[in-house]
Formats: sequence, C-alpha cells, structure tokens
Amino acid sequence: MHEAALELFGERGYARVTAAEVAERAGLTERTFFRHFADKREVLFDGNELGGLLAAAVADAPEGVAPVEAVVAGLEAVAAVFEDRREAVARRARVVEAHPELRERELAKLASWSKALEGVLVGRGLPEPDAMLLAEVSVAVFRVAYRRWLDGGTARELAAIIRETLAGLGGLFAHTAPGPRDLSAARAGAAARRSDR
Amino acid sequence: MHEAALELFGERGYARVTAAEVAERAGLTERTFFRHFADKREVLFDGNELGGLLAAAVADAPEGVAPVEAVVAGLEAVAAVFEDRREAVARRARVVEAHPELRERELAKLASWSKALEGVLVGRGLPEPDAMLLAEVSVAVFRVAYRRWLDGGTARELAAIIRETLAGLGGLFAHTAPGPRDLSAARAGAAARRSDR
Repeated sequence: MHEAALELFGERGYARVTAAEVAERAGLTERTFFRHFADKREVLFDGNELGGLLAAAVADAPEGVAPVEAVVAGLEAVAAVFEDRREAVARRARVVEAHPELRERELAKLASWSKALEGVLVGRGLPEPDAMLLAEVSVAVFRVAYRRWLDGGTARELAAIIRETLAGLGGLFAHTAPGPRDLSAARAGAAARRSDR
Repeated sequence: MHEAALELFGERGYARVTAAEVAERAGLTERTFFRHFADKREVLFDGNELGGLLAAAVADAPEGVAPVEAVVAGLEAVAAVFEDRREAVARRARVVEAHPELRERELAKLASWSKALEGVLVGRGLPEPDAMLLAEVSVAVFRVAYRRWLDGGTARELAAIIRETLAGLGGLFAHTAPGPRDLSAARAGAAARRSDR
C-alpha cells in the first residue's frame, strides 16, 4: 500500500489522489484500505512500526551501557531500516515536505517516538527529568541527521551521520549554562548595542 | 482576546466554545475576530510573537558570545514573558495538552521557532549543519524546561530551569558517539540476551 501511495502521490500530487485510487493501485478494495488506515495521509505513517522498533532496541540494549548508548543502538536500528529503503524514504520525505498537514503529522509522529523513548529510559532506571531530556534531544539529533542524510544523496550512511551529529553536540554546548552574572553582562551588551543604533 | 478565550475554554471546554462567543466575551465583533485569527484555535497561538522575540534576542546578542550563549539569551527573553504571565501560561498549557489538534499545532509552532533560530544562527556566522543542530536541540531543551517549570508550580524560575537543563546535557551525552566497534559489541550483547530468553 505504501509503495502504491508513493507512486500515485509522485505521479499526480498528494492532493489529487483519493484513498480509493491508492487501494486500486495496490490491487485491494477500498474497504480493505479503510480497515488499515483512517485516511490516505496515514498510509505514509505506517502505524507506529518504527517507533516500536526504536523503543524495543533501546529496551534490549545490554544492562551496563550508558543511557545515551542504548538510545544510539535504537536510532541505529531505525537507521538500518531507512538505509534499506533509501529511495522510498526519500520519495516519502519529498511528499511530506510539500504539505503542511503532512509536516504536522510527521512532527506528531516524532513526538510519539520521544514519548516512547522516555518511557523505556525510565524503565532502564534513568530518573524522570533526565529521561525526558535525553529522549527529546535524541529525537532532535535524529531529525538533524535524517535531514543531512537526505540532503547528502547516497554518499553517507545514516548511522554514521547520527554518530557524527551526536559528537557535534559536545562542541556546540561546551559554553553551556553560564551563570546569571555572565548572562546579565551579555544582556547589558545587547542593550548597549540596541541604544547605539 | 487571549484572556477571553482562556476563560471560556476553562469554563465550558475548548470544543464547546465558538469563535463568535470568544469575540463576544472580549467585547468585540465576530468580524474583528476573524480579521485577526483564522479560527478559535489560533487565539492560543498569538501570531508568532514569541518566535519573533526569540529570534530577535538571539540576533541582538553581542558579537563575541558563543552561539549557545546567544541562544540562551533568546530563551531567557521568552522565559521572562512566561514568568510574567505564569497563571495564563499554565491555563493555556492545560487546554493545549487536552486536545490532540492543539498539541499538533503546538509542535508546529515549536518547529517554526527552531527554523527561525536556525536562520538567525546562520546569520551570526554559524555553519549550516551546526545551526540546525543547535536550533533543534535548544528547542528540545526549552520544551523539557517548560514542562519542568509547569510541573513545579511556583517554586522555580523558568530561566533557571533552562540553564539547569542545558547543564544536564553534558552529563547525559558524555558517553556519546561510540565508534562502530563499541556498538557492534553492544549489538552482539543484545542479540545474545535475546537468544537467552
């Protein structure tokens, strides 16, 4: 169904394709279509297969590994699926990018990944506030790596880009958490600049 | 209008309130309402006032400061607005939480903050891949801090929680970016555990 939908959306544009047409292209009845999907939009979001894979891989990481390593193992499991379907993933991404309602749905999907990840991390013993932080930031890292992977053509593997993106965090946040004094100095500087104009 | 909408949504539930009723409570005509908002949902999303404030504050940070410090100055500008309206922000959050369509709209709003932040960071000279990473992760940090602030009652200031959350990133990502060997070892461990079951 996924393949049929991508073909049709690519040929005629997402807005001009009906659920019945997707079903027909896939050689199925409209009734079968609606047994599996609420509407044509949902064909592009596959239940929550990948979110489940992510959570399971994190849960299955060996007990001793650091939480971030468990998350990386989960993101790599998702990356392996994407790598195998690179062409279809790229076509799907183009359709999603082109439609605000699909972009919103994609954000909701990623938010559900983050929620699932948070639950699994708590299950692994990470205290709650850290679990939410690690989950949210990891999904943000995944989004960035995914975007780089799509933009980079076939040159690099997604798993490698995820590791590289994670490694880049350290440098960017090295100057993190300045005390109130540093910030009020920065603010005073900003105010001074504004009054200079 | 914002205040009138929060009152009505609180009294009768979001679903049972019309745009006309919000306008009436605010002492305005329905026509005026629709001149400012596409629908009743948008009253809760205020144009993009806060996103603009965030971007402007980052752009205004003194030239010498590290990108992450510029972002913190921006998040603090938003935090100051939230702190002044703590009651209204908490009421709004409860309405948004309770409705999937509002949660999706909230995610879209945060994604637009991230896009704006990315643009400003590129304008400050940060190379593109890092700009997207810093923007996405900073918005994720903000989401976590905002959630902690809402859950914590009146005990702590949002700006302090943002700094603390950022500081927590270092510890969580300290074991970051393991090489391929470490991961294949972790994977083999996970596989072994699975086959033990």
